[in-house]
Amino acid sequence: MSDGFLQIASTLTSIARGFHSRGWLVGTSGNLSAVVDREPLRLAVTPSGVDKGEFSPAQVLLTDEQSRVVSDHLAKPSDESPLHVRIVKEHGAGAVIHTHSIWNTILSDRHAGDGGLGIEGYEMLKGLQGVKTHQHREWLPIIENSQDMLALAESISDTLGKNKDAHGILLRGHGLYSWGRDLLQAKRHVEILEFLLEVLGRSILINGN
Amino acid sequence: MSDGFLQIASTLTSIARGFHSRGWLVGTSGNLSAVVDREPLRLAVTPSGVDKGEFSPAQVLLTDEQSRVVSDHLAKPSDESPLHVRIVKEHGAGAVIHTHSIWNTILSDRHAGDGGLGIEGYEMLKGLQGVKTHQHREWLPIIENSQDMLALAESISDTLGKNKDAHGILLRGHGLYSWGRDLLQAKRHVEILEFLLEVLGRSILINGN
Amino acid sequence: MSDGFLQIASTLTSIARGFHSRGWLVGTSGNLSAVVDREPLRLAVTPSGVDKGEFSPAQVLLTDEQSRVVSDHLAKPSDESPLHVRIVKEHGAGAVIHTHSIWNTILSDRHAGDGGLGIEGYEMLKGLQGVKTHQHREWLPIIENSQDMLALAESISDTLGKNKDAHGILLRGHGLYSWGRDLLQAKRHVEILEFLLEVLGRSILINGN
Amino acid sequence: MSDGFLQIASTLTSIARGFHSRGWLVGTSGNLSAVVDREPLRLAVTPSGVDKGEFSPAQVLLTDEQSRVVSDHLAKPSDESPLHVRIVKEHGAGAVIHTHSIWNTILSDRHAGDGGLGIEGYEMLKGLQGVKTHQHREWLPIIENSQDMLALAESISDTLGKNKDAHGILLRGHGLYSWGRDLLQAKRHVEILEFLLEVLGRSILINGN
Repeated sequence: MSDGFLQIASTLTSIARGFHSRGWLVGTSGNLSAVVDREPLRLAVTPSGVDKGEFSPAQVLLTDEQSRVVSDHLAKPSDESPLHVRIVKEHGAGAVIHTHSIWNTILSDRHAGDGGLGIEGYEMLKGLQGVKTHQHREWLPIIENSQDMLALAESISDTLGKNKDAHGILLRGHGLYSWGRDLLQAKRHVEILEFLLEVLGRSILINGN
Repeated sequence: MSDGFLQIASTLTSIARGFHSRGWLVGTSGNLSAVVDREPLRLAVTPSGVDKGEFSPAQVLLTDEQSRVVSDHLAKPSDESPLHVRIVKEHGAGAVIHTHSIWNTILSDRHAGDGGLGIEGYEMLKGLQGVKTHQHREWLPIIENSQDMLALAESISDTLGKNKDAHGILLRGHGLYSWGRDLLQAKRHVEILEFLLEVLGRSILINGN
Repeated sequence: MSDGFLQIASTLTSIARGFHSRGWLVGTSGNLSAVVDREPLRLAVTPSGVDKGEFSPAQVLLTDEQSRVVSDHLAKPSDESPLHVRIVKEHGAGAVIHTHSIWNTILSDRHAGDGGLGIEGYEMLKGLQGVKTHQHREWLPIIENSQDMLALAESISDTLGKNKDAHGILLRGHGLYSWGRDLLQAKRHVEILEFLLEVLGRSILINGN
Repeated sequence: MSDGFLQIASTLTSIARGFHSRGWLVGTSGNLSAVVDREPLRLAVTPSGVDKGEFSPAQVLLTDEQSRVVSDHLAKPSDESPLHVRIVKEHGAGAVIHTHSIWNTILSDRHAGDGGLGIEGYEMLKGLQGVKTHQHREWLPIIENSQDMLALAESISDTLGKNKDAHGILLRGHGLYSWGRDLLQAKRHVEILEFLLEVLGRSILINGN
């Protein structure tokens, strides 16, 4: 194992445990990944079906472009690993985090018919990479959920191709994918988008639609 | 004490303390159990009236099929122990967890007239044992609460007999019973069902009924 | 200092810190007390204006029936100490805990015109001392707030005289007083009443009045 | 580094980490400062773009009246440092804390048209410096957000000149600034104002406007 992989596994674990305690990785849901090498692609990724509250760095898998495990582990990588690979390769992300929160579940279902959610006017938006003002309008695309990972990967790829500035994408009734140049930026993006989704949800409650 | 019992007592304690901090075992409410042996039945179970936030493995009782304490403890097992025994024997569970949360209390009362709650369309459902798609419809039966433990045990037994695929059951204005092949699976099922109940509750608030 | 006082100061501190982290003792609000001796009355009590999140046992004061400090401390006891003395003397409590939560603040204001709040039908009620069934109706009296501690003490005394079975009392827009035979029972009562107030608040939101 | 600065940096870090875990400093949002010396002005301040959940005292910067770093750090101070300087110089504060919470974001937007929010009738108000009764009416001014820090500083200065008794100020869709004679008092004011904003938000939900 390279030092880079060990460092990434440690950071990934710390984020996973923190997000678990916030209720965003309930049960064994959610997954995280980070690029270890680009050529050939090597991705650190969480295994399938593990409790993120009890997670340790030794459980982080190293996988290749086909999401095959190349580290010395018997565990399977997350079923959604191919989605991580697509976001890393096509959107230039260095890390991808997928969370299931109460508000991303509700709002991704409520606004699916609009194809996405527009968020603007909040200072918090400035925490997203490249955003310079609260007047920015962030469009968070929503795609239909599917159990066909290839179809879902195509759908994500297609949606990201049309939304090159997006910092995240919602899967209907499923959760949020966000990413960043590295794990720390991806973590920041998730925290900000989850905050804004809760602001949006509670604003609808208090102000009406 | 067998190693199996000590290991189970430790895991059970850790889950109890974690769920207490989430607000699901408030006051001295809630109880947990796990099968130590099947023949004859030996169940590790939480004692009656203890604060789960201060709970330690040495307090876990070992009981028999009649919920009599067979370990060297003076404490009484939870009054609801006979319900755990029924779920273990008739539903094949290896562990049972009973939680009182804000949302399971409210929704078990609100939907009692329908005899249960249907939950479908959420990816989170896939964390329930045997569920392969978000299109699954989970039926969470609701039964009337009672202080007559024998009557309540009959009611649970009858309801589970009619809902063999259920992963949990609600007692009206009382709480959630869920279970699994072992404590870790039961914990996962509770986390998922509590998550989905909160999604359902907040969805009703935001979308109307 | 007697061993009894040191033990009580330690338990009181642990409860104060736990409740602070739950958001029930925000800023420097709230106060706790416990009887150390009955004849003459000696009460362990939190000092005025301290942050309960940083609280230590050495800060717990020993006071007499007139709320004068008899331990070797320069700090002043909580301004509301006379209310604690009244509840201890007239209601037979061994410990008193006063919390400010979001829900007790809102509901004590919303239902002040009714003179109190009725709560019934919840299993959680059984955690209150002497309650044997969820069919119990708990009446939580609400009195007007005042900065005149003598008037407030009279009002509490009068209200408790008329509600001998009450486990708590709400001060309008101010907070909850609850009590028990000792600190652990008082803690349990607070946890249960705060749980039930949140259930009530969210039930009103979801079901309408 | 003076002992005073080291002590302040330690307290500031502890508050920052605590508020991060409450969700008030999400992503890398929010900033804190405290006066180390008045003549010439020396301010301890959080650096720009750091995760407050991972923050350590060694990262606290010492800055002058023009928000230039005078300690041995390469990091930039928070972009909003000039706002802290204005509040410290013109309002006599010894410490300033700026938080982004769900409720301050929503309510600062909802009530921007009224120029502020009035809060009265709550005992919790008495935790604000100089407030003696729950009958106090606290006026929390709301100003429009801007990315022009000089304009924003003028706007804050102007608003504080007209509201000399204010304990905090809201920036629309952005967050809360509060302050105190020192960090501990500023912390108390933030906790109280955030509590009252949540009470106000949930009261609107339950009672209608």
